[in-house]
Amino acid sequence: MAYRLTLAPWLKGYRPGDAAADGLAALIVTLMLIPQSLAYALVAGVPAQMGLYASILPLLAYALFGSSRTLAVGPVAVVSLMTAAAAGQVAGGDSGAYLAATVILALLSGVFLVAMGLLRLGWIANLLSHSVISGFITASGLLIAASQLKHLLGIPMQGDTLWELGLSAFREAASVNGPTLLVGAAALLFLLWARGPLKRLLARTPLPPMLADLLAKAGPVLAVIGTTVAVAAGDLQSQGVAVVGAIPGGLPALSLPAFDAGVWGQLALPALLISLIGFVESVSVAQTLAAKRRQRIDSNAELIGLGTANLASGVSGGFPVTGGFSRSVVNFDAGARSPMAGVFTAGGIALTALFFTPWFYYLPKATLAATIIVAVLALVDLGALRRAWRYSKADFTAMLVTLAGVLLAGVEIGVIAGVGAALALHLWRTSQPHMAELGQMPGTEHFRNVRRHPVITSPRVLSIRVDESLYFANARRTEDAIYDMALNCDGRRHVVLLCSAINHIDASALDSLESLNRRLLDAGVTLHLSEVKGPVMDQLKRSDFLEQLSGEVFMTHYQALATLDPETSERAADDKPHA
Amino acid sequence: MAYRLTLAPWLKGYRPGDAAADGLAALIVTLMLIPQSLAYALVAGVPAQMGLYASILPLLAYALFGSSRTLAVGPVAVVSLMTAAAAGQVAGGDSGAYLAATVILALLSGVFLVAMGLLRLGWIANLLSHSVISGFITASGLLIAASQLKHLLGIPMQGDTLWELGLSAFREAASVNGPTLLVGAAALLFLLWARGPLKRLLARTPLPPMLADLLAKAGPVLAVIGTTVAVAAGDLQSQGVAVVGAIPGGLPALSLPAFDAGVWGQLALPALLISLIGFVESVSVAQTLAAKRRQRIDSNAELIGLGTANLASGVSGGFPVTGGFSRSVVNFDAGARSPMAGVFTAGGIALTALFFTPWFYYLPKATLAATIIVAVLALVDLGALRRAWRYSKADFTAMLVTLAGVLLAGVEIGVIAGVGAALALHLWRTSQPHMAELGQMPGTEHFRNVRRHPVITSPRVLSIRVDESLYFANARRTEDAIYDMALNCDGRRHVVLLCSAINHIDASALDSLESLNRRLLDAGVTLHLSEVKGPVMDQLKRSDFLEQLSGEVFMTHYQALATLDPETSERAADDKPHA
Repeated sequence: MAYRLTLAPWLKGYRPGDAAADGLAALIVTLMLIPQSLAYALVAGVPAQMGLYASILPLLAYALFGSSRTLAVGPVAVVSLMTAAAAGQVAGGDSGAYLAATVILALLSGVFLVAMGLLRLGWIANLLSHSVISGFITASGLLIAASQLKHLLGIPMQGDTLWELGLSAFREAASVNGPTLLVGAAALLFLLWARGPLKRLLARTPLPPMLADLLAKAGPVLAVIGTTVAVAAGDLQSQGVAVVGAIPGGLPALSLPAFDAGVWGQLALPALLISLIGFVESVSVAQTLAAKRRQRIDSNAELIGLGTANLASGVSGGFPVTGGFSRSVVNFDAGARSPMAGVFTAGGIALTALFFTPWFYYLPKATLAATIIVAVLALVDLGALRRAWRYSKADFTAMLVTLAGVLLAGVEIGVIAGVGAALALHLWRTSQPHMAELGQMPGTEHFRNVRRHPVITSPRVLSIRVDESLYFANARRTEDAIYDMALNCDGRRHVVLLCSAINHIDASALDSLESLNRRLLDAGVTLHLSEVKGPVMDQLKRSDFLEQLSGEVFMTHYQALATLDPETSERAADDKPHA
Repeated sequence: MAYRLTLAPWLKGYRPGDAAADGLAALIVTLMLIPQSLAYALVAGVPAQMGLYASILPLLAYALFGSSRTLAVGPVAVVSLMTAAAAGQVAGGDSGAYLAATVILALLSGVFLVAMGLLRLGWIANLLSHSVISGFITASGLLIAASQLKHLLGIPMQGDTLWELGLSAFREAASVNGPTLLVGAAALLFLLWARGPLKRLLARTPLPPMLADLLAKAGPVLAVIGTTVAVAAGDLQSQGVAVVGAIPGGLPALSLPAFDAGVWGQLALPALLISLIGFVESVSVAQTLAAKRRQRIDSNAELIGLGTANLASGVSGGFPVTGGFSRSVVNFDAGARSPMAGVFTAGGIALTALFFTPWFYYLPKATLAATIIVAVLALVDLGALRRAWRYSKADFTAMLVTLAGVLLAGVEIGVIAGVGAALALHLWRTSQPHMAELGQMPGTEHFRNVRRHPVITSPRVLSIRVDESLYFANARRTEDAIYDMALNCDGRRHVVLLCSAINHIDASALDSLESLNRRLLDAGVTLHLSEVKGPVMDQLKRSDFLEQLSGEVFMTHYQALATLDPETSERAADDKPHA
């Protein structure tokens, strides 16, 4: 089934009232997006104007193709970090090659996302489990915060891992620039105050809650204005405070980077990871917001929307983008009704790029670093490790592998190791099936584990439930375990396998079942099956196993017991249920 | 739990009668093993005496540590092919390096097998599914047969894939040696006749069936004697018929190859694959034979047994060995009662190496090639592809990937691609859970798919069964599917999820269940669970999901319906069952 392209379905029935609501939301998002775009350009290691470029055409592309009504697309922290890591690897210190690499990453991500959308491959993102994503986001937050210390301290720092960054900071510790640290620390404290105490304070005022919330979120804008004015007025730049400086004004020119198969090939895997991580992050934001208004997200349309947004970013000299959490929430809370808000926001950023870039000349990089640190530390959730430990050791392990991998070996290795660990743990778990001997719950036709419930067992029939689909990784182990259980039950001439938890039987498992049937027959024990599901039964009928089977296949386990040991079965069914 | 080493447990209670039986079996196996050892040395590309060396100490080591009473260890076809492929890759045409590589492969395989046995990692071999093994064995058989054509035709041929071998044969087609082809074709036809018509003929004589079978299996020995005499008498060697030539007599000297980290590192992966494939092949032979006499195989003891056999082969200048199918069956059929038969066989081969090697001077390589071709073509089972296609498309695909991979890209790539394909297909299948709406089977407390069975459904309660454990690869898809089913059932305010087929719920799936519970609640639908298994319930209790759950958890699905819609439930239970 091919993807049916629908351009901007929200445009039908668009009304002036919608435009007013979207316009207001766009104004607020634009104010928020300007410092964010500049800051994430800093994270990605590219000139400030590329941050603005990545916030113009991509928004228009998403408005045309995306399916969320309120998602706000643009540069985001995690994807910018991944961009910096990948571009750094291929550029080898050459800044021209670095910029080209970021553009190529945007184009490649765009191609991958659109291709996945057209081929309906959105499910691939499901391979990134909750634990891997959670570990990755936390680690990225820490890594981004660490990487921004250089702007806060005014020292050079290099590295893609916590280890390298720490070593680099340690070496340069003596050359910390006082005025830079002063500006940065002031911005940082103000932002933390705005997020915490100020927000609570505003919540207690008679202001409408939404407005109070928006005011608290205006913290970054105020920090930008305040520190820019301070630097300009106090000539702090001459004392070593690094500023954004001259940003070339104007709109981006459309162009494509030169094609070099080697470089594009090297960037393919990072671009794929950027696509997947960006997609997962974006689609979960989009779904959260859509659920609040009972709207639906089509994940294939999302892939196309984000893909075209990245293609648009690439051709206009930007870097990879995706749907951002904080700005989407602001957009939603400010009352955006449709992607037209994104179109208006793009217009606002374009005007900024055309006319207002000189205003950012004195904006200190330390302020941008402070806004980044405050934003990404909100992503850090070490409590998730504790919760995962409590719920499932496998999830905990996958999370820890990802977290440690990203922090100590870099984002790509970390994600790949995490996904690998999650898959390996899943296989390991399904290769060790839980098995239970069953008895009849008194007064019912229901059978449960003899070790957990007060059940009645038959002296003639052994009931076994295997809690796993049978496939190559567990086939032989299951065969041996059932055989051993059967031989250790002296006197029982029938084994009934309750198949309600068996969802597939592959060829290896079929072979094991045939062997089990033969081995039990040699030992004088008859093998029966019960509650085999339709799809599994269909498959067994395509082999000759059912002809070989020494016993019968029963519709229900109760029928099996009623046939093979009517006495016990009737007594149990008539018994009074225990409390 | 550590492995408990037991040396030769069969030695306790060993009687003279056993020794007589073992001695007879050993005599027959020795006669069979001599040409096989020489032939598989040819497949592995090493001098003939290495084949004999690989059949002396390894047999003693296995007798001490192995757990099968009748397994016959030594060089086998498939492992010899893998040895040749791996050694050829690192040697680069240097024959000294090639021989060293085969010895290193034996040592490394030995180390891996012993380590897996001590760490109880035998289950790793389960990752090689039935289909992958089957595809691998068939492809190896074809590849070995193709590689032996050079000896049958008397032309040089090179390559590790069918493609390279074919090209090489095509190039040399003009230089086929007539007398070689004559000898080879005669041996081939005789062997095929001995396997087929002669065997059927002997079966109809009054000879005891076992003796008739053994006589038919003596074909290779007769072919070796006949062609050796013919070459010696007719001086065919001077007409270009390649012979085995002078084999240095004497027993192997114990030694270790030089340690070169680079070479050992390169050989580690091939050695691991050789270990796994050899182990799987050997253990399945051992289990088949053990089952016939109600004996048991301990897979960890098998790992130690095969591992020490390979270490013994390595230190005595041999190449990787494992349990062989045909010789083990002969050993078993000839009445071997204990591994003492292997000790006697080792003695027989040692005597051969000491005194009888000159007898093989005129043995034509074409005869050995013919015995190999006849032996390995018996491994080729293309019908398995057809059966797999019929039973399961996933198994068919894994088999085809392995088969094509081995034939066209070599043994290692083929096996790795096959295992990768099998795992990917398994994940793909579990990521697409089968789901069914359920109704009550009339006259029972049992619930089945409404599309397959004549069931009674409740107008108030929607019953859904998910046929898969819930984990990251299917969590979101399942959540959306259940939500859609619930919304498309107007009027039903309760959804009961029958959890009998859910064996695990990982953290990603827990998140999805929480989200499903909220979404359904928003839509005014209550979510209940039924028949949650013990281990899953334990896990859910470690989260706060059960407090969040809008509905209840019922012990049985019947109880859920009896509580939520007593009217329909009672009516259905009292209804007469359909025929």
